[in-house]
Amino acid sequence: MSDIKLTYFSVKALAEAIRMLLKYGGVDFADIRIERFGTEWPEVKPNMPFGQLPILEENGKVAHQSVALTRYVAKKVKLIGNDDWENLEIDAIVDTINDFRAKIASYYYEKNEIVKEALKEPLFQQAIPYYLEKFEQIAKQNNGHFALNRLTWADFYFVGMHEYLNSMVDTNLYENYPNLNKVVENVFSIPPVKIWVEARPVTVA
Amino acid sequence: MSDIKLTYFSVKALAEAIRMLLKYGGVDFADIRIERFGTEWPEVKPNMPFGQLPILEENGKVAHQSVALTRYVAKKVKLIGNDDWENLEIDAIVDTINDFRAKIASYYYEKNEIVKEALKEPLFQQAIPYYLEKFEQIAKQNNGHFALNRLTWADFYFVGMHEYLNSMVDTNLYENYPNLNKVVENVFSIPPVKIWVEARPVTVA
Repeated sequence: MSDIKLTYFSVKALAEAIRMLLKYGGVDFADIRIERFGTEWPEVKPNMPFGQLPILEENGKVAHQSVALTRYVAKKVKLIGNDDWENLEIDAIVDTINDFRAKIASYYYEKNEIVKEALKEPLFQQAIPYYLEKFEQIAKQNNGHFALNRLTWADFYFVGMHEYLNSMVDTNLYENYPNLNKVVENVFSIPPVKIWVEARPVTVA
Repeated sequence: MSDIKLTYFSVKALAEAIRMLLKYGGVDFADIRIERFGTEWPEVKPNMPFGQLPILEENGKVAHQSVALTRYVAKKVKLIGNDDWENLEIDAIVDTINDFRAKIASYYYEKNEIVKEALKEPLFQQAIPYYLEKFEQIAKQNNGHFALNRLTWADFYFVGMHEYLNSMVDTNLYENYPNLNKVVENVFSIPPVKIWVEARPVTVA
């Protein structure tokens, strides 16, 4: 009997790594999805910590922040490091993947067209190739993983949001990066993850 | 005999929480400071993981990402939670403080004057008061702390960068927030931290 409740929008984006990790570990949870563009979100938003989703509820307590939640769930399903230094290595690459996401998101969500245009070239010409080339090197050195030469929650963190990143820039970012594709394949081929990926709601992001 | 080396610019900003935590725990470390605007940084930058500082070296290994490094050092000096949920609470507020920093930084470091002007009102009229009021509530509920009603590395994370945040917006952000000032006082009054704060290099940020 689980009393874990994960609440997010009906997209993969910042919550999918959490969902995949719970599925990986066979942990039951309620996958609550609320409508981003309906009347529900404006009603719910003011009651969320810092007005954001995802949130995770367990034993009547509420927590927020997607990276923190992903780390918490990773501990439950034992996809963390074996010591503090290993966990530091995982945390560092996860925060770096998150920096990359934030750069893409600040372009994608920008409403001021002048600002958006100014962000475009530095993002597409500099930041994106810079990060992707470094990520590719790291995935190569770690044999299809992001850290420690083995499966950890860093891989789930990337794989959970890799389609969301593509959707924001409307392209396949990883096309020329075989080792990043290998990270995705490595996670997607784990039986309980594979079952989840085939059964989950179909969403673009 | 310590072989911990922390390398950063000669400012508090993203490394000061790490320095203060090491001082708090009586852990020896080399406080390496490189010149941001001299010839040194352009030479060093390409060899840094993802071109950024701070980095921390220990036993010949190198790690990066300031939040990850702060968490790692907090484990050494035992200013973490007592269980996974407590650590989740700390991680969530630290990432939220970091979101606040990122919003201020994206305004401060913006070089395009048109973009900068467009960022100004949403930052000063919306984001800054929104975050500070929530932080003040949290600090009040936790009796002068950011989490768990007691001293944790979340307090160090905020206190380490509070002057840097002020310097970016050229004002005292916390003037009307007595409980945020209490967080600062609580950390600064710890004897080894007090000694460090009086002895450390004087910098604005």
